[in-house]
Amino acid sequence: MSPPVAGEKRPALVTCTAPVNIAVVKYWGKRDEKLILPINSSLSVTLHQDQLKTTTTAAFSRDFVEDCLWLNGEPADIGHPRLQSCLREIRRLARKRHGESSGGDEGDPLPLSYKVHIASENNFPTAAGLASSAAGYACLVYTLARLYGVEGDLSEIARQGSGSACRSMFGGFVQWVMGDDADGKDSVAQQVAPETHWPELRVLILVVSAEKKVVGSTAGMQTSVKTSRLLKHRAEAVVPERMVQMIHHIQQRDFEAFGQLTMKDSNQFHATCLDTFPPIFYLSDTSKQVIALVHRFNAHHGKTKVAYTFDAGPNAVLFLLDETLEEFVEVVKRSFPPKSNGDQFLKGLSVKAASPSEELLAEVVRDPIPGAVRYLLITKPGPGPSVVDDGSCHLLGEDGMPGSSS
Amino acid sequence: MSPPVAGEKRPALVTCTAPVNIAVVKYWGKRDEKLILPINSSLSVTLHQDQLKTTTTAAFSRDFVEDCLWLNGEPADIGHPRLQSCLREIRRLARKRHGESSGGDEGDPLPLSYKVHIASENNFPTAAGLASSAAGYACLVYTLARLYGVEGDLSEIARQGSGSACRSMFGGFVQWVMGDDADGKDSVAQQVAPETHWPELRVLILVVSAEKKVVGSTAGMQTSVKTSRLLKHRAEAVVPERMVQMIHHIQQRDFEAFGQLTMKDSNQFHATCLDTFPPIFYLSDTSKQVIALVHRFNAHHGKTKVAYTFDAGPNAVLFLLDETLEEFVEVVKRSFPPKSNGDQFLKGLSVKAASPSEELLAEVVRDPIPGAVRYLLITKPGPGPSVVDDGSCHLLGEDGMPGSSS
Repeated sequence: MSPPVAGEKRPALVTCTAPVNIAVVKYWGKRDEKLILPINSSLSVTLHQDQLKTTTTAAFSRDFVEDCLWLNGEPADIGHPRLQSCLREIRRLARKRHGESSGGDEGDPLPLSYKVHIASENNFPTAAGLASSAAGYACLVYTLARLYGVEGDLSEIARQGSGSACRSMFGGFVQWVMGDDADGKDSVAQQVAPETHWPELRVLILVVSAEKKVVGSTAGMQTSVKTSRLLKHRAEAVVPERMVQMIHHIQQRDFEAFGQLTMKDSNQFHATCLDTFPPIFYLSDTSKQVIALVHRFNAHHGKTKVAYTFDAGPNAVLFLLDETLEEFVEVVKRSFPPKSNGDQFLKGLSVKAASPSEELLAEVVRDPIPGAVRYLLITKPGPGPSVVDDGSCHLLGEDGMPGSSS
Repeated sequence: MSPPVAGEKRPALVTCTAPVNIAVVKYWGKRDEKLILPINSSLSVTLHQDQLKTTTTAAFSRDFVEDCLWLNGEPADIGHPRLQSCLREIRRLARKRHGESSGGDEGDPLPLSYKVHIASENNFPTAAGLASSAAGYACLVYTLARLYGVEGDLSEIARQGSGSACRSMFGGFVQWVMGDDADGKDSVAQQVAPETHWPELRVLILVVSAEKKVVGSTAGMQTSVKTSRLLKHRAEAVVPERMVQMIHHIQQRDFEAFGQLTMKDSNQFHATCLDTFPPIFYLSDTSKQVIALVHRFNAHHGKTKVAYTFDAGPNAVLFLLDETLEEFVEVVKRSFPPKSNGDQFLKGLSVKAASPSEELLAEVVRDPIPGAVRYLLITKPGPGPSVVDDGSCHLLGEDGMPGSSS
């Protein structure tokens, strides 16, 4: 895509989608709050957009009076500092490219001074606690870059919206290299392996029933960095070697090692939250029961067939191979029987019904808790952001206003 | 007391009591399983025996056919390796002293070859999860030492029964110095300050309603030492400086600093349990609610008026000053309303009813959970083990059998 130079046909309106990602080596703590530079590198799996994605349409026009934002159909504050950071950085890159391509002293500067309209929505409820800000900022930056004809590594800009958003700029397995530079230029995301690298890998999200509001991750990280000695040690001494190990396990498609390290890193992240003062608890009783269930299931099989990870909330994200999916889904259904309220319990990729052995069920399923898990979402690793060509998917109409396409 | 040399009048039966202690710098992890040598020093407050104590009667007689043990009135296994360690060490010291006092070549060796009867009971339910093994082994070692006329530092022997038992050999504020020696001779308890040092200090134990069985501390420690990187760092880098700080805060009677460090160390201990693989959870939802309540209460007052600590179970042990007791007990009663099942809710030291301000209650008491706390036990720092002279307290009768005194 070309930069928006004078006289060239260019999109005045672009729609893109971007994915959610789930970290298997966790990011927790910033060394620079403004630039969003982390105290350690992290690594995530990008989830498939068929199940979880953000869609964003951005448009500019000489007729727009002011910059505007709509989130999930509702007007929202475009003045948010992090959103402004992303907008400013994209416009700065566009100006730079524009200056270069036009010889630096001519061309049409107008589109850069036009106001922009942005509409964004998720195909999943925000309340599900599935890190929508990562997909949201990744999609915003990717869409704006397309609109303004900016190319190259955009992860550094997405990072300034939401740290983990930089990892949603790629598909498959992605590391966020913490970097050394004070200006954050080397704190960027890199793909470790594409989504096609491990075709058997599946991801199962257990959305647990709503619990009380917890400490937000921005505030939580700040308190942890200030007060947790264990977090400091984790960032300095533990994560560097875990990054090397995790990349190796992924390259080898070694589920046993990948799963073990994923669980250990999730536990250690939550341990540093508990070492924070006042302590932060993200794991609910249901989370703990899922953890115990996974350990019993693996113990029964004598190897790691399922691995859990938890972000700053009680929902469990489980990794497993396709061959384990049917059996484990049945175990989850027996352990957390769905409440018969008419809602769908299994969402996402389809899964055949299984009949686990009585021996397995007797050993693994204990004290079922009806209703503790609201629903299961089955997905897998997926690609990074992409442009949507289908005009019917635009979230803004010809007039640059939302509503006309929905 | 003299050693049991020939012809001297000596007790063939001794009864002693010993206290429970609660650590404020936690012990978790052994560097030597057999000798029970810890990976870090620890520090505790000895609780008053008026509320929590173990009573033990030990007797020897040429008529006893075999060593026997009764726990809370029931026959128990005296062959337990740790109990045997204590018995063997006491007898070894007695033999040594006996040899010395009799010139090494004469005297009456008979009592040392006599069989021993031991009966022990707690004045609190074992099920309450109040670290009865510390009081139990401290009492056993102290009683046997009196019976055999052994004096000197017995904490090294008590340590071989249960690590934390060595701290129950003294009253007041007690540190267990981890030591360096491979044979454990320098891994002993020392009094930091007597129980009279801080007369305003009170201890409030919230016994929470029975939850599921948790991982025992012996097994838990082993897994933590093997798997937790954070525990290793805590033991090596964090605890040494916390020991110095905690001793200083106690010497200064600085409740603010003492309370903060107590809470942080409890949280860090539980963080290392979560960093263990598979993870160990000792804090229940009720524990977390007590933690949140304490932080709200302190925030309301703008200073640390109450501090929590939790051992390997969900019961909360709270420290506070006498001046705060009435108000906080009322806050606990409102937050965890007792179930009206006729059981006593307030036990131990008496406390007057208070009427906290509506403002305090509105800010601090949230979503009361009836029945989550079974009862409150109010106590304070207390003295170490002592001999009971009142013959009616013996747990063994003239015939060396239990039952006659109860």
